[in-house]
Amino acid sequence: MDIESYLTEKRKIIELSLASVFSGGDKYPAPLDEAINYSLFSGGKRVRAILVLASADAVSGPNEAVLNAAAAVEMVHTYSLIHDDLPSMDNDDFRRGKPSNHKVFGESIAILTGDALLTRAFSVLTDRGINPNIDPDRCMDLVYELSLAAGGSGMVGGQTVDVVNQGRDLDLKSVEYIYKNKTGALIRGAVRLGAIAAGAEDDQLLSLTNYGEKIGFAFQIVDDILDIDGNEKNTYPFILGMEKAGEIGKGLVEEAIDSLRCFDEKADPLRMIARFLRERRY
Amino acid sequence: MDIESYLTEKRKIIELSLASVFSGGDKYPAPLDEAINYSLFSGGKRVRAILVLASADAVSGPNEAVLNAAAAVEMVHTYSLIHDDLPSMDNDDFRRGKPSNHKVFGESIAILTGDALLTRAFSVLTDRGINPNIDPDRCMDLVYELSLAAGGSGMVGGQTVDVVNQGRDLDLKSVEYIYKNKTGALIRGAVRLGAIAAGAEDDQLLSLTNYGEKIGFAFQIVDDILDIDGNEKNTYPFILGMEKAGEIGKGLVEEAIDSLRCFDEKADPLRMIARFLRERRY
Repeated sequence: MDIESYLTEKRKIIELSLASVFSGGDKYPAPLDEAINYSLFSGGKRVRAILVLASADAVSGPNEAVLNAAAAVEMVHTYSLIHDDLPSMDNDDFRRGKPSNHKVFGESIAILTGDALLTRAFSVLTDRGINPNIDPDRCMDLVYELSLAAGGSGMVGGQTVDVVNQGRDLDLKSVEYIYKNKTGALIRGAVRLGAIAAGAEDDQLLSLTNYGEKIGFAFQIVDDILDIDGNEKNTYPFILGMEKAGEIGKGLVEEAIDSLRCFDEKADPLRMIARFLRERRY
Repeated sequence: MDIESYLTEKRKIIELSLASVFSGGDKYPAPLDEAINYSLFSGGKRVRAILVLASADAVSGPNEAVLNAAAAVEMVHTYSLIHDDLPSMDNDDFRRGKPSNHKVFGESIAILTGDALLTRAFSVLTDRGINPNIDPDRCMDLVYELSLAAGGSGMVGGQTVDVVNQGRDLDLKSVEYIYKNKTGALIRGAVRLGAIAAGAEDDQLLSLTNYGEKIGFAFQIVDDILDIDGNEKNTYPFILGMEKAGEIGKGLVEEAIDSLRCFDEKADPLRMIARFLRERRY
């Protein structure tokens, strides 16, 4: 299977999983339900959710906890975009070619939409109605994993350092911190959540964590190389130059693939995703 | 023991529990750590966290899960105050007599501080380091309970309806929705979290849920009666008049106490808190 078909197939599974999570149970008042739908189903590439599924496939295969973890990760990612786009943050009027959430629904609803999505991610992981067979021990690990990846020592920490340094020149070490946390933490977390939900052994989890860290870092470097015309100065390509940044990105992809050596062909999707990242042009 | 000594004693336990949660583990970048400390330790009355402890006492008594649930509830409450105070929400410059979080740290950090606190609440419930003996089944229920109380069909839903109707005259039914969700959901949730963490039987949980709903509702009525000089028009005392609103509040307190009839003297603190609410003058 080629990478494009793989991504398309997995994306369909994730859309269904997200739609089913939001079809029943919780009732949100207007306009919260509309605002959630607007941002959650807006043509996202679902990279993080796909990583949850691919990581689980490398270990054993899908189960309900894997699907719900993928939905939860995507909800956390969507919340982070909504809050990042706010005027007091990155002040982005557009997201995925559409007006950003606060441009359509206003700032207060955008903040509340993010809050609701973040909170819902944790109920998706622990709702017995959609996790009838989950091992509670594993469930506890999934919640902890997601909260660490998303929280103040992870994604929110990275966004904090990014926001307070807007307009200032940072050294490479600080940029590294932002890369590792703002983007890297949830990508690493996605890979780990998939592995945990699929029942990975300790050594498998360690290898997959390594993979997740490397591609999370590479992902942001590639993103910044493709966006070199942007105004962002605190990036690897800006500080080190395109060529050097590209080399580091390629090296990280190699290391990511290398950390999968104890896995058989069931980890091929993860290898494909890493290579896809290296070749990425959009 | 009189109510004031009881509240003081429990408040001390909660301060210690919160301080210990934040003393180790997660490392937050500046100024996130400072902003979290600023709002989390700012002289809050800790009513919700005390309800977690008192509810657990009615069932069996404290354990590590009860203490961590109390800390988690207080973190969720603090996050909600920080986000509610934002300029695009209620636009409050002061909170508990001090400048609100965004007045000190700026809007972006205030949003991120709320995000970090909400996320941390879920890691506090699932961190095996501080929950070494927890029953994972119970842990799963606690996370689900907190996420429902705090989310879009609970607290965030109530805040949504409140925010979108600012300046408009609401009917009693809509005000009831706001009361039940914006304030009531987390108070009800606090009582339920304490009960679940203490291992309540189904019938005990049902009675305590009933208690939590009644005092959550009464709490907001009393709050609005005390704040009748404020600008808020969508309140029970404004719509129904002080006397009628006061009667409803008193009636709810009686019903709350009545729902505890199957509990022995271990539920006396809950009864005291309900009566205290009725007599409250600040």
